[in-house]
Formats: sequence, C-alpha cells, structure tokens
Amino acid sequence: MSEVLSRLQAVLEARRGAAADTSYVARLYAGGLDGMLKKIGEEATELVMAGKDGVPERIVAEAADLWFHTMVVLVAQNLSVDDVLAELERRFGRSGLDEKASRKST
Amino acid sequence: MSEVLSRLQAVLEARRGAAADTSYVARLYAGGLDGMLKKIGEEATELVMAGKDGVPERIVAEAADLWFHTMVVLVAQNLSVDDVLAELERRFGRSGLDEKASRKST
Amino acid sequence: MSEVLSRLQAVLEARRGAAADTSYVARLYAGGLDGMLKKIGEEATELVMAGKDGVPERIVAEAADLWFHTMVVLVAQNLSVDDVLAELERRFGRSGLDEKASRKST
Amino acid sequence: MSEVLSRLQAVLEARRGAAADTSYVARLYAGGLDGMLKKIGEEATELVMAGKDGVPERIVAEAADLWFHTMVVLVAQNLSVDDVLAELERRFGRSGLDEKASRKST
Repeated sequence: MSEVLSRLQAVLEARRGAAADTSYVARLYAGGLDGMLKKIGEEATELVMAGKDGVPERIVAEAADLWFHTMVVLVAQNLSVDDVLAELERRFGRSGLDEKASRKST
Repeated sequence: MSEVLSRLQAVLEARRGAAADTSYVARLYAGGLDGMLKKIGEEATELVMAGKDGVPERIVAEAADLWFHTMVVLVAQNLSVDDVLAELERRFGRSGLDEKASRKST
Repeated sequence: MSEVLSRLQAVLEARRGAAADTSYVARLYAGGLDGMLKKIGEEATELVMAGKDGVPERIVAEAADLWFHTMVVLVAQNLSVDDVLAELERRFGRSGLDEKASRKST
Repeated sequence: MSEVLSRLQAVLEARRGAAADTSYVARLYAGGLDGMLKKIGEEATELVMAGKDGVPERIVAEAADLWFHTMVVLVAQNLSVDDVLAELERRFGRSGLDEKASRKST
C-alpha cells in the first residue's frame, strides 16, 4: 500500500518546476514556501475539527490532506518522505518510543 | 522503508489500552482525544516554524512528529494509517491529482 | 483607542444576521461555525510566520486579523469582547498572573 | 473595561527583562521567540476545540489565552496592543470593513 508515498513523492518532484497554471501542486510551488506552510496550519486545523466531530471519513480525508501538504513542503525543501520514514524508523522500536517519551515528558 | 508505518500502527494499537504511566503514548491515550488533537496543532506549528527556519533536519523531525501524532489520533478513533494511504491512493495518479486540483481551486 | 473593540463588536452583531452577499463578515456567519474556526487556525499560522519573519507591520496586521476573527467567533456564539476583557481583568494584577503561571507550569 | 489591555501591556513590558524564574511570562521571554510563537499555535488550537464544544466559558477562556499570548509576542517585538487596535481602527468603519471584505474575497 505505502508505495503510494513513493509515487506521490515522484509526482511532486515532477511538478515542482512545472508552470503554475498546470496543476494545484505546481501553483503551490510557484507561490512560494509561505503558501505551502500556511496549508499545514489550515489542514491541521481541519483535522482537529474533524477529530472533534468524530466522523471517520472526514478524519481520514483531513489526515490525507495534512500528509499530502507535508510532502509538498518536504519536496519544496529537497527532502523526501523517505527522510520522514527513516526518522520514524530511528525513533521506533521499544527503545525509540521510550526515548521519545522521556524527551517529551521533560 | 514504509513498513515502519505498519509497525508503528501495531505499537500504537498495543499501547492504546495500556496504563497511563507505562509510556508517552499510553499517557496520551489515557488523557483523552482533546489532548491528542492539541498535539496536532502544536506539531503543525512547529513544522511551520522549522519550515521558516529552513533547517532540513528540523523539518524532517517536525514532520515525523506531526505524522506520529496523526497516527495516534487515527488509532484512537479505530482508524489506521492504511486508511490514509488508501485515501491518497484513491486521489493519486494523474486523474486523482487533477481531481484534487479542481476541487481545491474552487 | 480601545473603543474600537466596542464598535467592532456592534458591527459584527449587526452583520451576523445579514444576507451572505452583503459583506465578508455576513458571508462568514452564513457559512457556519466551522468556517469561522478554520480562520482562527489560518490567522494564527500567519501570525506565527510573520513572527518568524520579524517584520513589525506584518506582525501587527496578522495579530489584528487574528483578533478580528476571534471576535467573529465570539459574536457567533452570542459572546462579546467584553467577556474576554473581563476574563483578562479577572486574571490580571499580581495575583492573577501568578495564578496563571502556576496553572500553566503544571 | 479595555484599560485592562493597557495595564497588561505595562506588566508584560516590565516582565520582559525579568529573571526567568520570577513568573510564567518572564520564563516565556527568557525562552525566546519560538516558544512564544508556539503558544499562538497551541492556544489557537484550543480555541478551535472550545468552539467545537460550544461551551461559552471555555471559548472565553481560550480567547483570553490567545489574546494574552498575542500580546506576549507583540511586546517581545517591541510592539504594543495599541498598534493592533490602531490597525483595527484603520480598517474599521463602513469603508474599512468593506475594504477587508473585498481584499479577502479575491
């Protein structure tokens, strides 16, 4: 299933340099980083509201929006979804999550 | 790489019912949905700030935090990272992204 | 100076019931609470970004946007800017701020 | 009522340079701008959640928190609540709100 993230990464990279009028993503990239970051705030707020409403389909849709726009930001900065997965991998496992727990509880 | 999401999903499900004092995640679940949703807003803000600073390592770390806490919310609502990946899959491909583009531009 | 808040309160109340096509505010009210709350998330994100940029005029403009949309939400819920000022008054003074400090540090 | 904003401004200015262990506000200032901006994101999220819950007392309390932390940021940047009120004054009045409406609807 998660190969979709790899394909999405490739599409975002391809559209990063495309003309602004060719797609939603190309328009985001042409508009500059502030517009992409603003979407992070917007989509996070919508996920919070969907969570309060407790409607599963909307929670999933808003989470997808938030991850999608996270990947837009990553690609804008020449980063990759693989970097995020590697970071989760690094933290993960018993020791990884425990490390996070101790860091966050301070 | 992305099998890490599946393993993280399993760990979150296992800790959902654990005693609050056993881990950071168990404490989040014991605290209720509002606390988890609040983390979405916090981590989104931190990702925005990292994006403004333009430090790659921090952008990756904050994106990982944001995705991690998104998964915490999903599991709290008996949803799964696979639901989000399936939603991205549904939107994805040439037609999928074009659909998104037209929807968002209205 | 701050009588502007009272006048703004009155204008918002007047426009709350107006037809959606008569003003930006009337359109917000006609659109329902979710749209107003979404603006809180958006404007907060823009204030954070302006703060990172450190441009005084933009910080002031985004703070004004955020307070304006806070008042839109208050009026939508039959509340008033006076309620917020009374809450700040209640917390304020030496003891008030100390109370806040102790509450927040837990 | 709104003289409370002026007094709060004065208190924040007085605590800006105080030792971090003397109050919640002094600790915020000592911690640097990122911590203050992070509070904007947090308090905005809490206001959104309170709005979804529709509990008047919590909406007022979260709006007060958000405005308080907005003023913390303003003072950190050598700005004032008067700057925000002047900006609202500038936009306000029939023409001011109409200007905003037209700007936002584009």
